[in-house]
Formats: sequence, structure tokens, C-alpha cells
Amino acid sequence: MRLRHKPWASDFLAEHSQYAIANPTLYKGKWNELFGNDNPIHIEVGTGKGQFIVGMAQQNPEINYIGIELFDSVIVAALQKVVDLQLPNLKLLNVNAKDLAEFFDVEEIDRVYLNFSDPWPKTRHIKRRLTYKSFLALYEKILKKGGEIHFKTDNQGLFEYSLISFSEYGLMLKYVSLDLHNSNFEGNIMTEYEEKFSEKGQRIYRVEAKYMNEEK
Amino acid sequence: MRLRHKPWASDFLAEHSQYAIANPTLYKGKWNELFGNDNPIHIEVGTGKGQFIVGMAQQNPEINYIGIELFDSVIVAALQKVVDLQLPNLKLLNVNAKDLAEFFDVEEIDRVYLNFSDPWPKTRHIKRRLTYKSFLALYEKILKKGGEIHFKTDNQGLFEYSLISFSEYGLMLKYVSLDLHNSNFEGNIMTEYEEKFSEKGQRIYRVEAKYMNEEK
Ligand SMILES: C[S@@+](CC[C@H](N)C(=O)[O-])C[C@H]1O[C@@H](n2cnc3c(N)ncnc32)[C@H](O)[C@@H]1O
Ligand SMILES: C[S@@+](CC[C@H](N)C(=O)[O-])C[C@H]1O[C@@H](n2cnc3c(N)ncnc32)[C@H](O)[C@@H]1O
Repeated sequence: MRLRHKPWASDFLAEHSQYAIANPTLYKGKWNELFGNDNPIHIEVGTGKGQFIVGMAQQNPEINYIGIELFDSVIVAALQKVVDLQLPNLKLLNVNAKDLAEFFDVEEIDRVYLNFSDPWPKTRHIKRRLTYKSFLALYEKILKKGGEIHFKTDNQGLFEYSLISFSEYGLMLKYVSLDLHNSNFEGNIMTEYEEKFSEKGQRIYRVEAKYMNEEK
Repeated sequence: MRLRHKPWASDFLAEHSQYAIANPTLYKGKWNELFGNDNPIHIEVGTGKGQFIVGMAQQNPEINYIGIELFDSVIVAALQKVVDLQLPNLKLLNVNAKDLAEFFDVEEIDRVYLNFSDPWPKTRHIKRRLTYKSFLALYEKILKKGGEIHFKTDNQGLFEYSLISFSEYGLMLKYVSLDLHNSNFEGNIMTEYEEKFSEKGQRIYRVEAKYMNEEK
């Protein structure tokens, strides 16, 4: 994600604190109170400019969405969309995903979306990949039993790695597409990166993986 | 596999019964006696014309190979290669893979290779796919604990299906390549189908999956 210098970004986030939650630790265990309903909560880690999560929130008003993005200079583009559309079921957090357990209680979340996560191709950076086992453990903590990760990427190496990482962690693969845009998957909402890479003719990979931690 | 009428096929197999084992049920539990050593045994299901298993047997003299192929008109091409090369560590069985448990004892086999298995794309034919759960159960029976399936194909749908089928069965993915011929995998031996499809520019997919049935 290219970073432009955006000194106004933090002001813009602060001005719209009903969408861009300034102090998310306050809502740990209470997100449904903030949304004002008991609908399921789906989070996206690494939301970028928000095209995916905004589209999902529009498509599925009965689900609450929370987009998590590290860079304020990027998340402001998502915030602009939410402000324009006045979406009641979408919040944005300008935080680091490694701290997820500070913002969400055990089993508070129903699904994790990862889209076009940074590939970190070098083996010495493996721990930074958002599908590395320490992240899978973090997601497991905040997800309900039997919760799912839905992951899309154009990056072959990251996809191969993630299939193995999911499998080693004990997640079950429920759905795999090795060419999403030529599959019969319906209702796909494209991310910014997905648009860019698929226009270049890159294949898009997609997987749904489920935690097998439900009581029998 | 195109079937030509080859009336001489059964004669040719009978003439070379030291390679093409005529009555494999006799050797159930005794394959190491037949090979004359205690080396691991790897089988290939759907060997076709044998290019892969012959190459593997040459590359790895310390492993015993058994190629299994339904059609005599096809397996004769494999037999011709074995006869020419006088390979001591390769046997061929002109049998149906669904009867594997009649030919091999519990835990007699160390690895199963599946290469370019018939895709059976229609859902109503799902049970015929060699990665369907009933076949995974059959392989589990004859494989040692922690045994592996190594699977290659150009068929995207069959590969997607097989990843899910392996995962649902509880097999762990150890290795995944979504473009084998542009990966750093070493020592690949091409099958006939692999040569044909990769020349046409098709990607080759490969996975190694492990049964998680070892005692802790
Ligand atoms: C390659 S971009 C993809 C953006 C968007 N999901 C898409 O598909 O267009 C990855 C995004 O993840 C964000 N990101 C990476 N690591 C993160 C972390 N630990 N916490 C929050 N966001 C992160 C980056 O800042 C970047 O915006
Ligand atoms: C598509 S061909 C691939 C041949 C070879 N493995 C290759 O990659 O070139 C599949 C082969 O599997 C064989 N086959 C299919 N089902 C089988 C079964 N149940 N038992 C034994 N062989 C089978 C077919 O006869 C055919 O020769």
C-alpha cells in the first residue's frame, strides 16, 4: 500500500468517531451493544481502502462488520466511503492486528476475512504473514467455536503457504478455488487489489477454512 | 486413456510374470519376500504407460515400486519399459484399485502416488474419483501409520476437490504447489499426461498429504 503523507488523516478519523472507533479496547466484549443488535460480527484484517468491507456491509445488512487497518493514511479512504454511505453496520479500527485480543473478547467474532494480505515472501519474515500460526491462534481466541477464515489473494506463494499453515493448525478446508473469477462462486465483492491484479490477468485464489474446535 | 484393441496384451503380460504379477492376492503381506528385501514399498494407482513409476524406480533403487493399472492395453507399455530395463524394484499389477485391500496387507505400503487421475467432473460420479473418501479409507488401511499420498494433476477441479477431500478426511497437507514446473521442487519425474499437458501450457498442481494416525 503506497503511503502518501496525509497529515489530515488523524483529524478526519477523530471527526468521525462513530465509524472510526478511537479507543476500541473500551468495546471489548461489548461490540454488539455498540452496533445496537445481536447480529454476527465479521472482521476484515488489513482492510486497506475498504472497498470489500463496504460492499459486504451493503450486501449483508444483517451482519456487523469491523475493518482493521494499520495505516491511517489508507483507512481514511475506507472511512470516506462509510461516511458517504452512512453505513450503520460497519466500524473501522486504525490498529495493529497483532493486538486483536485487546479489542475483542473470547468468542466475540463470527468470521475473519483476509484479503490480499502482504505476502512477506522471505522465509525470515514468515511470522509476519497473517496466516502464520500465531495469527491463527489469535483468530481462534476471538472467534466463536467452528468459526471461519475466508481468505483471497493473487499471491501463489502465500496461498500455498496458507493452505499448509491452515492444515497444520488443524483447520479444515471447506472451499478452495484456484481461479475465483472463472468459478461458479456467487456474490463475490472485489477488493482494490483484486481489481488491480485481475485486470492484469492474475488468477485470484480463495479458500474458506474452519476451526474444528466445536464440542461434539 | 485411448484404448486400442491389443489381443496380444494378455499374452505379453503372461510371458513376463516376474514383472507383471498375475495373481497378486498370493503376495498379500509378502511383497517384501517377492522383492527380496525390506525396502519401503510405494504404489502408484493408475500407472498408465508407466513413465513415472519406471523413472522413480530407476532414480530410487532402495525403494520398491508397484504400479497398478486397470487396462491391459495400457499397462503393456509400462511392462515393455520394465522388461527393457530389467528393473528389479518394480512390479506391475493389472487390477482395479478398488480391490487394493485384497492385494496388500494392513500397513504393508509406505506411500501412494496418484498422477493425473481421471477427473470424473460430474458430481454424480464423485465416488469414482481416486481421492474420494472411500479411496482415502482404502489407502489408509494398507498404508503404514503416518503414510502419505503424493498427488499430481493438471485438472483444476479435481485438485480443488482433492484438497478439500483430504482435509475433510483429516489428512494434513505437507506440501502444495500450484505451478510445479515453475517451482523449486527437485527431482520431478514427469508422467505421460504431465508431458502432454505441460507442453500445452497447462499448469501442473501437486500436493503431499499425510495420514495423522500415528500414535503420540
Ligand atoms: C496488500 S494490502 C490489501 C488491502 C485490501 N485488503 C485489498 O485487498 O485491496 C494489505 C493491507 O493490510 C494492512 N496490514 C498489514 N498488516 C497489518 C496489521 N498487522 N494490522 C492491520 N493492518 C495490516 C496493510 O497496511 C495494507 O493496507
Ligand atoms: C488419465 S490416466 C493417467 C495415466 C498416468 N498416471 C499419467 O499421468 O500419464 C489415468 C489412468 O488411471 C487408470 N485407472 C483409472 N481408474 C483405475 C482403477 N480404479 N484402478 C486402476 N487403474 C485405474 C486408467 O486406466 C488410466 O490409465
